[in-house]
Amino acid sequence: MDASMRLSELFNQIAGIGLDPTSGGYRRFAYTREDVQLREFFVATAKRLGLSLSVDAAHNQWAWWGDPDRNRSENLVLGSHLDSVPSGGAYDGPLGVLSAFVAVEALMDEGFHPSAAIGIVNFSDEEGARFGVACLGSRVLTGETDRARLAQLRDYDDIPFDQVLAEAGVAPLEADDRAVARIGRFVELHIEQGHQLIALDAPVGLASFIWPHGRWSTVITGTPNHAGTTKLTERDDPLWKASHFILDLADLAIARDAIATCGKVIVEPNAINAVAALVRLWVDARAESAQVLDELAADITELVGRFDAGLVNESLTPMTVFDSALTARIGAILGEPPVISTGAGHDAGILVNHGVPAAMLFVRNPTGVSHSPEEAATQEDMDAGVQALIAVIRGLAS
Amino acid sequence: MDASMRLSELFNQIAGIGLDPTSGGYRRFAYTREDVQLREFFVATAKRLGLSLSVDAAHNQWAWWGDPDRNRSENLVLGSHLDSVPSGGAYDGPLGVLSAFVAVEALMDEGFHPSAAIGIVNFSDEEGARFGVACLGSRVLTGETDRARLAQLRDYDDIPFDQVLAEAGVAPLEADDRAVARIGRFVELHIEQGHQLIALDAPVGLASFIWPHGRWSTVITGTPNHAGTTKLTERDDPLWKASHFILDLADLAIARDAIATCGKVIVEPNAINAVAALVRLWVDARAESAQVLDELAADITELVGRFDAGLVNESLTPMTVFDSALTARIGAILGEPPVISTGAGHDAGILVNHGVPAAMLFVRNPTGVSHSPEEAATQEDMDAGVQALIAVIRGLAS
Repeated sequence: MDASMRLSELFNQIAGIGLDPTSGGYRRFAYTREDVQLREFFVATAKRLGLSLSVDAAHNQWAWWGDPDRNRSENLVLGSHLDSVPSGGAYDGPLGVLSAFVAVEALMDEGFHPSAAIGIVNFSDEEGARFGVACLGSRVLTGETDRARLAQLRDYDDIPFDQVLAEAGVAPLEADDRAVARIGRFVELHIEQGHQLIALDAPVGLASFIWPHGRWSTVITGTPNHAGTTKLTERDDPLWKASHFILDLADLAIARDAIATCGKVIVEPNAINAVAALVRLWVDARAESAQVLDELAADITELVGRFDAGLVNESLTPMTVFDSALTARIGAILGEPPVISTGAGHDAGILVNHGVPAAMLFVRNPTGVSHSPEEAATQEDMDAGVQALIAVIRGLAS
Repeated sequence: MDASMRLSELFNQIAGIGLDPTSGGYRRFAYTREDVQLREFFVATAKRLGLSLSVDAAHNQWAWWGDPDRNRSENLVLGSHLDSVPSGGAYDGPLGVLSAFVAVEALMDEGFHPSAAIGIVNFSDEEGARFGVACLGSRVLTGETDRARLAQLRDYDDIPFDQVLAEAGVAPLEADDRAVARIGRFVELHIEQGHQLIALDAPVGLASFIWPHGRWSTVITGTPNHAGTTKLTERDDPLWKASHFILDLADLAIARDAIATCGKVIVEPNAINAVAALVRLWVDARAESAQVLDELAADITELVGRFDAGLVNESLTPMTVFDSALTARIGAILGEPPVISTGAGHDAGILVNHGVPAAMLFVRNPTGVSHSPEEAATQEDMDAGVQALIAVIRGLAS
């Protein structure tokens, strides 16, 4: 069976897990039945290839070709994650894990003997769909998120993190220095979450950096009133102000060539027959530089000021630059594919911030859409992704 | 003590019940501790005046001056309700009950002997704040809302109606024909929920009719996507469409001299880092005639059609016209005060729809605002309301 057919077969094996047949979207959240099924798939696939298996102290799964403790700094790890956002696509995460298995199998079939151990990782809970913290597996692994912080987390059903773990039969999570040390180098292949590779007419691209990004919130107030008796011309309706805010926010971000999203809105009292008292809004904003992000935040502060509201910063993540030496070597190996930046966070970003040489490859997405059932990839482009991983293993571990 | 001071004293007695000292708003929901305290106040006030007390099968409270069963059709009932919306004002409801007590006491002090029994009612759960159904006390009383419908209701904490009653020690509710028959004529005095009496320069007005009104809902969909990687110019964000909808809705209603409110909005998935998939919106619309309301609904249907959405009608209440003969008699008694229509529902509207001769008086509201702590009334205007009730009792029961 060739690599292309092998990849299709692996996707078929997980195609039904967490699928909503109506929307075509996937629901694969950490520590659920679907997560257990995906982890069993990882184990079965690794075993078939004769890889050695382990689970680190942060619940991430590892499969190794060769001894990961012989010469740790030379190890080359591939992989990504298998979980999804609510109603997610088929490729965000799984493409990186499945392509890695197919690349390793293809090289084994050829009789290739790597000069270093090759690892494949399935990072746990990358999307943060259950507890609101993205990249939880790599954050705990590296010690960035500690036990005290985990103890504060609650899932979408308000169940404490520790209780979710206990009910799933998983031991309390903790950092795992040995597992981190084994990641000599990390290359994460991922579906592109945008349109850059379409515009560049390239099936595969390399990542330069992750845009700095932040989260802000605001509360826009008005005058609550009776919906049946208050003339429209005499109202101070916070939903009117919030509507202007949402529309103007987009214009501000476009003007700075940045991204700003209002995806979460809570109206109070949210009654059909009452003019609302207030609207809570959250903003996710990202820009190519910290300076532009600062300027955009100032624009948004000025905007909410027009509604007598303030802007509260909830989190701010600086620019994450992937390992330049590793990225340059991969670029040379692959014949210099285009190098693109990305607005999305990834486990590879967490690792590089903790000193692990990490790089990323993106596979073109013909819809440009991600975190949605419309996310797509052609067989041809996915095959190009697998061939890129094969070349990377040859180039970095011969 | 004169009537003005007496009214102040009664308001002082309930001023602390359910008061949120921060907002100045009242939270007085059916079958809560606050409701019990207000009902105890009703009992104590009636007892002090020597009125006879009863509770009907729908949990409404009655106080009678004279025998309510001697000549039922001649009885004259005053009153309103004591419950509130969330963060409600001090007057919506209580003004009608307290003014009635003060009017009766003033006439007793004069030695007036009514020719018919005078009743004062405290209708239960008028605002519908707990179970989402307004005027529940009068709807159950008249049989408009039956046991089967009550059994479907759940409160804001998702507790079934029957369980709420059981926990409050209240017997299951049912219609009460005898109690309805005792309401020979009903005059409800209420704070105005608008600005008409300000414009008309009148402290007290009479009600003509309640505007026809309805509730509609729509679901505006877009393309869910990753908030970090999707360019703004490539998005189909349903919150942008919803914002245009909210702003255009107001313009449509203003153009028809009608009222339309979007006070309830639910965003899905409502995640900070995801372009929303859809927005659910509810519309409360009211107009002076059924024809205008129909035209407005057609406008709104056309508006949501622009976003490829449909409009679903959830409820429609035709125009409610108060008893014309009773209203004309009261108009003559009071020297022809202005007659105004209203967009709000009231227990008097439920009763008139079930054949009870009912009329309403409004007291001027200097802010024009209701269902809010900003709701207001001057002592002078409230005194004028009490004097109007005294004149009505003299005029209709001498």
